[in-house]
Amino acid sequence: MFNDWQNLIDNIKKGSERAMARMISRVENREPGWLDAMKIIHKMSGKAKIVGVTGAPGAGKSTLTNTITRELVNRKYTIGVIAVDPSSPFTGGALLGDRLRMTEVCNMEGVFVRSMATRGALGGLNVAARDIVKIMDAAGKDIIIIETVGVGQAEIDIVKTADNIMVVCVPGMGDGIQAIKAGIMEIASIFVINKADREGVNRTVAEIAMMLNICSGPSDKNIPILKTIATTGEGVAELTDALLHDLEAKDKKKDWVEERTKEEILNLLEKEVARYLWGKWEKEGKIDNTVKQIIARERDPYSVVEEMLESLIAEHKCEQF
Amino acid sequence: MFNDWQNLIDNIKKGSERAMARMISRVENREPGWLDAMKIIHKMSGKAKIVGVTGAPGAGKSTLTNTITRELVNRKYTIGVIAVDPSSPFTGGALLGDRLRMTEVCNMEGVFVRSMATRGALGGLNVAARDIVKIMDAAGKDIIIIETVGVGQAEIDIVKTADNIMVVCVPGMGDGIQAIKAGIMEIASIFVINKADREGVNRTVAEIAMMLNICSGPSDKNIPILKTIATTGEGVAELTDALLHDLEAKDKKKDWVEERTKEEILNLLEKEVARYLWGKWEKEGKIDNTVKQIIARERDPYSVVEEMLESLIAEHKCEQF
Repeated sequence: MFNDWQNLIDNIKKGSERAMARMISRVENREPGWLDAMKIIHKMSGKAKIVGVTGAPGAGKSTLTNTITRELVNRKYTIGVIAVDPSSPFTGGALLGDRLRMTEVCNMEGVFVRSMATRGALGGLNVAARDIVKIMDAAGKDIIIIETVGVGQAEIDIVKTADNIMVVCVPGMGDGIQAIKAGIMEIASIFVINKADREGVNRTVAEIAMMLNICSGPSDKNIPILKTIATTGEGVAELTDALLHDLEAKDKKKDWVEERTKEEILNLLEKEVARYLWGKWEKEGKIDNTVKQIIARERDPYSVVEEMLESLIAEHKCEQF
Repeated sequence: MFNDWQNLIDNIKKGSERAMARMISRVENREPGWLDAMKIIHKMSGKAKIVGVTGAPGAGKSTLTNTITRELVNRKYTIGVIAVDPSSPFTGGALLGDRLRMTEVCNMEGVFVRSMATRGALGGLNVAARDIVKIMDAAGKDIIIIETVGVGQAEIDIVKTADNIMVVCVPGMGDGIQAIKAGIMEIASIFVINKADREGVNRTVAEIAMMLNICSGPSDKNIPILKTIATTGEGVAELTDALLHDLEAKDKKKDWVEERTKEEILNLLEKEVARYLWGKWEKEGKIDNTVKQIIARERDPYSVVEEMLESLIAEHKCEQF
């Protein structure tokens, strides 16, 4: 089994996109051996810079991601793109044709695109996104762009794992308030006012500048507010300059990398330990009866969780030590 | 310590709102003894019906919650309201004055209101919401309304724990698409078109009806689409009728209650086991060094999580059994 994984990893090292795609799928599905494989991938990773692109729906994030990717490719960077898609089981999330727009970058040399449904990720969305980033990183991608469709908490938790967070707005006040309400303001590295040919663009710039001023108090960071028209490419070169500049500066942010690593351990801990204990109970056929007892108020979920932990401990008793 | 909790529980049984408020805070803070206290609360709960109110920002959810609450109070129900507020640490989430509007119901007889920030909940948002619901339920509230501000995944995960899910829209197509994209369509029990005095209301009703038709295929459920003007109270009596009717019908949905209970165990398992293991490592002063090693690629998060689990098992070795 492990030879198979090692084979994939060797091919990833050589930059094989096919191997990357297969490895991501297998890790997403938690196929046996994934944990050991990811240990190796972790050691191979750590060089890539991660960019999060978020903002209100309709702000043009997909088009902007496309255009920035093209610009970065022209500047000789290799790129990985992760499209986080809050798909519904019914609509498949393809309603607005985001995937369609994405195909343009798919075909660029040195660009690898992967989309990720926000539902059904076995290890949780956070963990799954980090896995994919690490695999792309290990494969030698210089910059990895995570593009989210919405501005929900799950999406924010994902983009927070990035080195640079781009918040995309459009002229008009609504988006500004939305961004603040969802807690994006304080995590933004760069504000982009896209569709800058629309009316009210300068007012939006002023509003965001004012909010940044209010929110961050005596400013220790200087957050750029840039105007783009993603469809024509206007302003994208300047945005790319600002992005690369910020990514360089992020090299110094030691505290922040430590914080991110802590979150990574904690997320992994939550998902994997729970998955293990739950799976054990399921295998033993205990779940259904327990659930019935809880509903009947004969038992409660709190003591069930305690018991699950205890069963884990009991299982590894004396013989093991 | 436990006497203190027992005292709170006794007062909650008598319907003391002060005891409820204190218990919620202490459970949210995971004060020692909370787990045993919640075991008792679980046994006391199970009678209340839970209503989730969600929808796009600006659809008038707060006002609608206010109006429905008043109507339910008039019909002699006691109500608990949980306002889920995705507050930013900077703005405190009060930007749009939702809390201000909420004060009206606060002062109604038999109504207990609690707001909940989507950030910093120790046990995770899901778990925290369930705890609060259970405490209100144990205190004898007939109906508990969970009102969310946004439509992110975290909010959806919360409203999914409700018996009835009301999705609030306003005339105009944008909201419809948003609702679908966020995966709300398939969890809705009732659609409310609020601000029904606005132009385009009938088109919106038709659009939602059409989407429901597409999404649910050969329809096994008949989801009402109702029009309201929350500010004047128009349509709210009819909405309340539909709500109470649906809550009665939900008594039969056994499978669904079982699914919800499974999720409850799993969420609790994730958060509590991780919190315990993490806390242990923190106390032993192991975190900082481990994080540095992971960043330096001398270690990896995957083997750290394995080691945490093993340390738990080792700790409880032979002596215990």
